[in-house]
Amino acid sequence: MSALDIFENDSDDTKSAIMRATYHALCEHGYANLTIQRIGDEFAKSKSLLYHHYDSKDELLVDFLEFVLEKFKADIPAEEYDDPCAHLREVLDHVVPPTLDAERYEFTSAMIELRAQAPHDEAYREQFSRNDRFFRQQFADVVRDGVETGAFRDVDPEQAAALLVTTINGSMLERVTTDDAEDAIRATRRELDAYIDSHLLAESGE
Amino acid sequence: MSALDIFENDSDDTKSAIMRATYHALCEHGYANLTIQRIGDEFAKSKSLLYHHYDSKDELLVDFLEFVLEKFKADIPAEEYDDPCAHLREVLDHVVPPTLDAERYEFTSAMIELRAQAPHDEAYREQFSRNDRFFRQQFADVVRDGVETGAFRDVDPEQAAALLVTTINGSMLERVTTDDAEDAIRATRRELDAYIDSHLLAESGE
Repeated sequence: MSALDIFENDSDDTKSAIMRATYHALCEHGYANLTIQRIGDEFAKSKSLLYHHYDSKDELLVDFLEFVLEKFKADIPAEEYDDPCAHLREVLDHVVPPTLDAERYEFTSAMIELRAQAPHDEAYREQFSRNDRFFRQQFADVVRDGVETGAFRDVDPEQAAALLVTTINGSMLERVTTDDAEDAIRATRRELDAYIDSHLLAESGE
Repeated sequence: MSALDIFENDSDDTKSAIMRATYHALCEHGYANLTIQRIGDEFAKSKSLLYHHYDSKDELLVDFLEFVLEKFKADIPAEEYDDPCAHLREVLDHVVPPTLDAERYEFTSAMIELRAQAPHDEAYREQFSRNDRFFRQQFADVVRDGVETGAFRDVDPEQAAALLVTTINGSMLERVTTDDAEDAIRATRRELDAYIDSHLLAESGE
C-alpha cells in the first residue's frame, strides 16, 4: 500500500499521466502552493488537456485521491495468507513504518493537507470516507478470517478494524505535524503488537 | 479537557480577551477564512491592541494553541483517582465522545486545519509536539499508577500512552473529515475499552 510504488510502472494513457504529474507536483509544492499550472509543469503532454479536464485544483485532487485508492485496491495481492496475525503485522509494517523517506514524507504531508480541506469540502470528505471505509473492510476481513480459523479469539472484527484504521490515521497525522514523531510512532506500533498478542491472538493450546 | 469550558469563566485581562476572540472567530470562520480583522470583530477592546501584539494570524494562532494547552493543564483536577481504569475511561469519554455539538465540531475542524499547517511551519509543529507530549505524559502517569497499585498488569506505560494519544488524534481527524465518523469512532472507542479490559487490566484474583 505504498503511495509511491503505484506511480512507477504505470500505463501511458492521459489519465495516468495527469495523475503522475499531480503526484509529483503535490510532493514538490504541497497543497497550499499547488496550482494547475505547476501540475502542468510535470506533465509531458499538452497543458491544455489539463485545463480541458479540470476547472480547479480541488476538482483534480479529488480525482487524484480516487485514483490512488483504486490503485491500492488493484495492487492488493490476491494470495491468501495462512497466518492472519502475520498478515496484520505486514500491513502495519507497511503503513506505520518507523521512518519515511523524503518523498513519502512529502506525500504524507500533502495527504494531511488534503484531508484538512474535508471539513469544508464535501467532495474531499466523501473521498476520505470511502478511503477509510475500504481500509476498515480490509482489516475486518483479515480479523474475521482469523476468528473463523481459530487463530484469533472471538473478537468483533469491525471494532478491531476501526481501532487499527484510527491508529493509522493518527500516526500519519503525528508523523508530519510533530518533531518527535518517530519515537511516538515506534511506541504506538509496539503497543499495537502487544494488543494483537494479548487481545486478538488465541492463547496457544486453546 | 473540553476546549470550550476553558473560555467560559475567564479572567478579563487583555491576553485572555484576545484568546477568547480568537476562539470565537476560529469557530465561526475556520482557519482558511480567518483574518486578524475578523478576530478584531470579536474583540471588545481596541483593535489596534491586536495589531500591536501580532504581525500575522499564524503568530496569533500559535500563541492561541499554547494558551489552550496551558488552560488544559491548569484545569486538570488535582484530586487523585482511586481507580486508574475509571480514570482512563473518564478521560476517553471526554476526548472521544460519540457526538460533538456544532461549536465543538467547528473547533475540532479548526484544530485539524491548524495542525495541517505544521508540516511546513515549525512554530505550529513545536506547539503540537508539546501538546502530544503533554497528553502522553498524562496518560503514562495514570497507567504507571495503575501498574504500581496492581490494578493494571505490568505493561509499558509510555507505550500504552502513545497508543491512546495516537487513537485520540486519529479520532479527531476522522471526526471532521469523514461522513460516517460517529459509527467509526464509537467502534474505535469500544475496541479501546476491550483493549483496556484484556491488555491493561489485571485479572481479578491476580
